Amino acid sequence: MTILVTGAAGLIGVNLVRCLLESGKRVLGLDNLCRGSRSNLQSIEAHPAFEFVQVDLDDINAYRAALAPRHLTTPLTEVWHLAANSDIPAGVSDPGVDLRDTFMTTYNTLVLMAEFGIRRLAFASSSAVYGDLGDRALTEDTGPLFPISNYGAMKLASEAAISAAAESGLEQVWVFRFPNVVGVPATHGVILDFVHKLQQTPARLDVLGNGTQQKSYLHVDELVEAMLFIRQKADARLNYFNIGTDDRGVTVRSIAERVVAQVSPSARIEFGSADRGWIGDVPRFRYSIAKLEQLGWRPQLGSAEAVALAVEQITRQEGCT
Amino acid sequence: MTILVTGAAGLIGVNLVRCLLESGKRVLGLDNLCRGSRSNLQSIEAHPAFEFVQVDLDDINAYRAALAPRHLTTPLTEVWHLAANSDIPAGVSDPGVDLRDTFMTTYNTLVLMAEFGIRRLAFASSSAVYGDLGDRALTEDTGPLFPISNYGAMKLASEAAISAAAESGLEQVWVFRFPNVVGVPATHGVILDFVHKLQQTPARLDVLGNGTQQKSYLHVDELVEAMLFIRQKADARLNYFNIGTDDRGVTVRSIAERVVAQVSPSARIEFGSADRGWIGDVPRFRYSIAKLEQLGWRPQLGSAEAVALAVEQITRQEGCT
Repeated sequence: MTILVTGAAGLIGVNLVRCLLESGKRVLGLDNLCRGSRSNLQSIEAHPAFEFVQVDLDDINAYRAALAPRHLTTPLTEVWHLAANSDIPAGVSDPGVDLRDTFMTTYNTLVLMAEFGIRRLAFASSSAVYGDLGDRALTEDTGPLFPISNYGAMKLASEAAISAAAESGLEQVWVFRFPNVVGVPATHGVILDFVHKLQQTPARLDVLGNGTQQKSYLHVDELVEAMLFIRQKADARLNYFNIGTDDRGVTVRSIAERVVAQVSPSARIEFGSADRGWIGDVPRFRYSIAKLEQLGWRPQLGSAEAVALAVEQITRQEGCT
Repeated sequence: MTILVTGAAGLIGVNLVRCLLESGKRVLGLDNLCRGSRSNLQSIEAHPAFEFVQVDLDDINAYRAALAPRHLTTPLTEVWHLAANSDIPAGVSDPGVDLRDTFMTTYNTLVLMAEFGIRRLAFASSSAVYGDLGDRALTEDTGPLFPISNYGAMKLASEAAISAAAESGLEQVWVFRFPNVVGVPATHGVILDFVHKLQQTPARLDVLGNGTQQKSYLHVDELVEAMLFIRQKADARLNYFNIGTDDRGVTVRSIAERVVAQVSPSARIEFGSADRGWIGDVPRFRYSIAKLEQLGWRPQLGSAEAVALAVEQITRQEGCT
């Protein structure tokens, strides 16, 4: 019996696969390696219970061909669907990116799960499904849901397709809604962007937006721990949980300052004027994790600590320290 | 300046187009005539301010080709997007139906609105976005949103894509969420089904489910009036309203009895055993229209009256009386 992990070469995928292997599971990992990189898999690729296939999940025939022979020999019993576009601004200029990579990968996953009779699905959703509800504390039952980015829209569309499938065929579903995740191997995100910018122009760091955007950040190690905890403990048919820190988050300014201190202490930071980094960027939100605490898990690291740890790890990854 | 109406040959489309023409607007109507029928257009097709094009909105190139030359001569300034799969059980056996006809038609509409610079959109959503929340009164801000049919899922996916577009390009959006709509020209639905069954086997009417499913029904004339009222009065960037009756609805049993009385009074009614007609059918819900009443509109007909009027109209349409 094998667990299928889509997006296996991404930040979350690599860390999840490692934990699954350590707990004795067999894992089939899929990734198109468009953002996730094969080198990310170094730490797990040699594991005898792991197999990796490069495939584009937008292409249902290729996706089916990757699963069919493997499902015959060791049946796939559960899917962790993490594959998605992770470049949110890219989805603003071209909504086709999130349609294909965030939504159609989910849709195709559901079609193939039905075909192969795989009935348990864990899904990486996003706090972006909530849109911009201002200063309201966001619980899992908060409405209305009007995402302001195509990324958030296609995550909500994915949740919707999954909940319909939970009614008609799936046995159990776990939906995880989380905000920005940081850690290594970093493939994208604000910290990596800042590091790359400073490597190019060590004297100056240009920041999108005015730096006051304040968001909560979760370290990938804690995210994976929380997801596995929920998978273990929550036993409704459709389980859905916010995962995050319950602090007010940290500002982009403070992240910029931390990266500068680590990479290029004399650099000047230049801020833009907008209150958000790009269209569809939610400038601030307040996240409730009461439901998850009720289940018995809470994060050890606050947003500031998660960012501090990730800055250390990412600058090391990028050869800055 | 012309208003684009998609799904123009359907139950709602025909009645909406008639009202728009009567109020002096020019209308371009599109429909693939897969369910809506050309004969439905009889009452409006001769109107000098109306043009109809048969086109499949799933095919973005055909859709673009239908709009481009017409937009050049009289600019399209507003879209009423009604086109969708209306056969909800069909979407249970094949989720591709709602993907294409309910979601991709919306996605393509948004892409073309961006291309042509059309910035106002009225959208026919559904009470199905709420899923099955039991006996809770459903307000517009109710959460969570976990639809239980692919139809509801793809309506929610459409809302999500629209709300992201409202952030990045659209000027104003009106989202209408309504339950079952009845009236003429009927193209589908429980009343028409019962009439057709009785025409085939006048002595017996088989009903899906045990007949206790209780739902609210809105007459199409009232729906169109309410949508135009909201379009006129609600002036936020993103406006979203439940439209419906605020009664507890009527049972399938009572609809069956009313159709039998009209069409074949001696027929025996045979009920199934399930509490719902099909997978994804929401057995009962309670709809709040307080927000719409606050705006200044409420329906004249309750569910029972709407059904009674529609049974009369549909049996006449089908030549039974």
